[in-house]
Amino acid sequence: MRFVIIGGDAAGMSAASRAKRNDPGVEVIVLEQGQDVSYSACNIPYNIADPERSIDDLVVRSAETFRRKLGIDLRTGHRAERIDRTARTVVGRTSDGAPFAVPYDRLLIATGAEPVRPPIAGLDLDGVFVVKNLEHGRWIKTYLRDRQAKRAVILGMGYIALEMAEAFAERGLAVDLIKPRVGLLPWLDRALAEPVREHLLAHGVGVHDGHRVERIEAVDGRLAVLAEGLRLEADLVVVAVGVTPNARLAEEAGLELSIGGSVAVDRGLRTSDPTIFAAGDCADSYHLVTDRKTWIPLALRANRAGWAVADNVCGGQVTLPGVAGTAAFKVFAMQVARTGLSVPEAQDAGFDPVTVQIRSRSRAGIYPGAQPIHVAMVGDRASGRLLGAQITGTDQVAHRINAAAVALLARMTVAEFSQSDLVYAPPFGPTWDPLLTAANQLVKVLASPQSP
Amino acid sequence: MRFVIIGGDAAGMSAASRAKRNDPGVEVIVLEQGQDVSYSACNIPYNIADPERSIDDLVVRSAETFRRKLGIDLRTGHRAERIDRTARTVVGRTSDGAPFAVPYDRLLIATGAEPVRPPIAGLDLDGVFVVKNLEHGRWIKTYLRDRQAKRAVILGMGYIALEMAEAFAERGLAVDLIKPRVGLLPWLDRALAEPVREHLLAHGVGVHDGHRVERIEAVDGRLAVLAEGLRLEADLVVVAVGVTPNARLAEEAGLELSIGGSVAVDRGLRTSDPTIFAAGDCADSYHLVTDRKTWIPLALRANRAGWAVADNVCGGQVTLPGVAGTAAFKVFAMQVARTGLSVPEAQDAGFDPVTVQIRSRSRAGIYPGAQPIHVAMVGDRASGRLLGAQITGTDQVAHRINAAAVALLARMTVAEFSQSDLVYAPPFGPTWDPLLTAANQLVKVLASPQSP
Repeated sequence: MRFVIIGGDAAGMSAASRAKRNDPGVEVIVLEQGQDVSYSACNIPYNIADPERSIDDLVVRSAETFRRKLGIDLRTGHRAERIDRTARTVVGRTSDGAPFAVPYDRLLIATGAEPVRPPIAGLDLDGVFVVKNLEHGRWIKTYLRDRQAKRAVILGMGYIALEMAEAFAERGLAVDLIKPRVGLLPWLDRALAEPVREHLLAHGVGVHDGHRVERIEAVDGRLAVLAEGLRLEADLVVVAVGVTPNARLAEEAGLELSIGGSVAVDRGLRTSDPTIFAAGDCADSYHLVTDRKTWIPLALRANRAGWAVADNVCGGQVTLPGVAGTAAFKVFAMQVARTGLSVPEAQDAGFDPVTVQIRSRSRAGIYPGAQPIHVAMVGDRASGRLLGAQITGTDQVAHRINAAAVALLARMTVAEFSQSDLVYAPPFGPTWDPLLTAANQLVKVLASPQSP
Repeated sequence: MRFVIIGGDAAGMSAASRAKRNDPGVEVIVLEQGQDVSYSACNIPYNIADPERSIDDLVVRSAETFRRKLGIDLRTGHRAERIDRTARTVVGRTSDGAPFAVPYDRLLIATGAEPVRPPIAGLDLDGVFVVKNLEHGRWIKTYLRDRQAKRAVILGMGYIALEMAEAFAERGLAVDLIKPRVGLLPWLDRALAEPVREHLLAHGVGVHDGHRVERIEAVDGRLAVLAEGLRLEADLVVVAVGVTPNARLAEEAGLELSIGGSVAVDRGLRTSDPTIFAAGDCADSYHLVTDRKTWIPLALRANRAGWAVADNVCGGQVTLPGVAGTAAFKVFAMQVARTGLSVPEAQDAGFDPVTVQIRSRSRAGIYPGAQPIHVAMVGDRASGRLLGAQITGTDQVAHRINAAAVALLARMTVAEFSQSDLVYAPPFGPTWDPLLTAANQLVKVLASPQSP
């Protein structure tokens, strides 16, 4: 059995390692176009924040370790260019220009995602960056050092944009964020977004939502970001307006595509060709709450999907229940966490969402250091089902979301979730956890005949 | 409708307030023997730690507020002495010695718990304290100040004992803990207890488990705690060896008792007399995992039970699913959290428990400040069900337990729980949350035919 994997990042290397652990007799070949495998992309902003650290600190395991310790035939500098499904062969070219052809019994496409490049003039200018892989991180760190950069403009306000804002601010740069639509993150409840915005402003970050960037210009060795009615000067510009699935190989091989151009897979991670799997940021998945297809590029689901593929390649019958879209990030001291659906997402999915927003505290009121916590919770009027939750605050926020994430997996109603026996001690929260306060409130609203 | 409540603490005042909110026409009378109602008992150790704070800071709501704002007939200084079930009347005596008799339509017994006083000579000596209510806190603070106490000995190693150890250490006292049985908390997995013990020792706290105290003596104006082979000198001694339900009134009224002498109630909080409810630390409850009766005196379940009683008194049909025994505490920087059953508890309940212990990190490995986290997880070999989890560590521990607590409410198997979409970002954990790492490991062990 020969198991070939295109892409040596989270999903690909998880699948490769697990396949070898499941069955050392499986021949595992990984084709990776770059030189880096198994690095922590999520840590790039934190590494950039610290000029003393090498970007190579982010490498979790070297290519050599995978080869020697796990017996994986890891071929870096191997760019896959085409999947020949009839011949069950991946063809491509090495970084030296030499062609290769690798036959497979089972194939995994784990080609990830790539940064969206919006149609703006000037993206190719020196000093304009995206942040996706180690090379990007290396370039940014070098640029910051060599140019003694003082001002950064970031296009986008998603969590990579916000993490980069913190990283640059930590290094003493002035930072501006800019995006076309009004509002911070589109899925974040307005009542919860407000403290995040205030936190950014309090840290001196310019927040310019509602401004569509028209072009980036080079002026006297610096850059200028031009939007209608706004001109922001910068030494460097980061474009962080989202990512898009890297599904070209799959598409050209005639495999079925899905949400946002991702590769369509079933619950066992099989594409429309049963000998070919897809996993990670290039593939879609099922959403736990809607039971419909979704595309949520996050690290845990990539690792989990890689494992499931390996198990199925080795004869297993693993299916994944789906994702809840649980995510968190922090910017300065402010933490933002979410799981499940926002109100607009719930409406799109055909639910009749009802939402409450509550304000509580991170610790018992009289315990030193208690900070405000805001919770928004969404339930379905018809079924009473819990659909989603969001939390913002500066103390002990992120892990609180997991209680709701597990409730979504269990398909609990809000009333059922409100009976959860959550932890209480004064250093960790009020007697009723903020999520329970929100759930109690939402139970009431769901029960009232004319709830808003 | 006259609703009479004996006891003005968490369960009693929750029930009183909710009944009035449900239906302002209900006459609510609370009989409280002391003068303090609605204070945060859980915060007493933290208040003691700070000599600048008055113990009265712990009062959440004054008796006057309950009377004026909520219309509750709150009678402090009213000690209930007997329940006459035939006449549906509570008889007692005020603090002035005047007798009273209060008829009821529905009665709630919310008499709480009281500290266990082990059969040790010298418990009545000056300088020997228990810690349960505001008065105890006041006495200890006064004593610490007036006697310039330098050394404390604490009998017990439960979480109140450990919280008091931290409080005294914060005030500069030398602290020794002593208990008869070997081991810290009886329910804590040994692999997890070890870092807690080391943490206590590193903070200079003496940990003397396996020493049964024989007596306490007064010697030259100080105290000496005497155990076989051990003599500990102290300026003050705190007895924190547990609490016992305060169920005397219920017992003398012929109501059915349960685990540990608590008042037996059904899922609607009714005692064996359907006009009488019991809630809070004096009453038993169902355990979510075993479906059997248990007695777990914790604040959240007291509040929740108080609400359920009020709803049922007002014509509702509320039943509670039960408790998972979720709890957390901290001592210095060390956090300890648990939910569900330990291995011995699971054996007692008739399960065939399998357990794993894993060591992970509180943040992504390369994120600054990552600390070790230990997780123990327990599953049932026969059914694959998740039975319990425990976590110790110094960073971001307590709220992680809630994911497992919700899984217990949902009666998930370990395999189901292992598919939870838990939060990941470098500041908050590794890609696989430590609970997921434990669950993945436990799934493997449960699947293996000859697992330990």
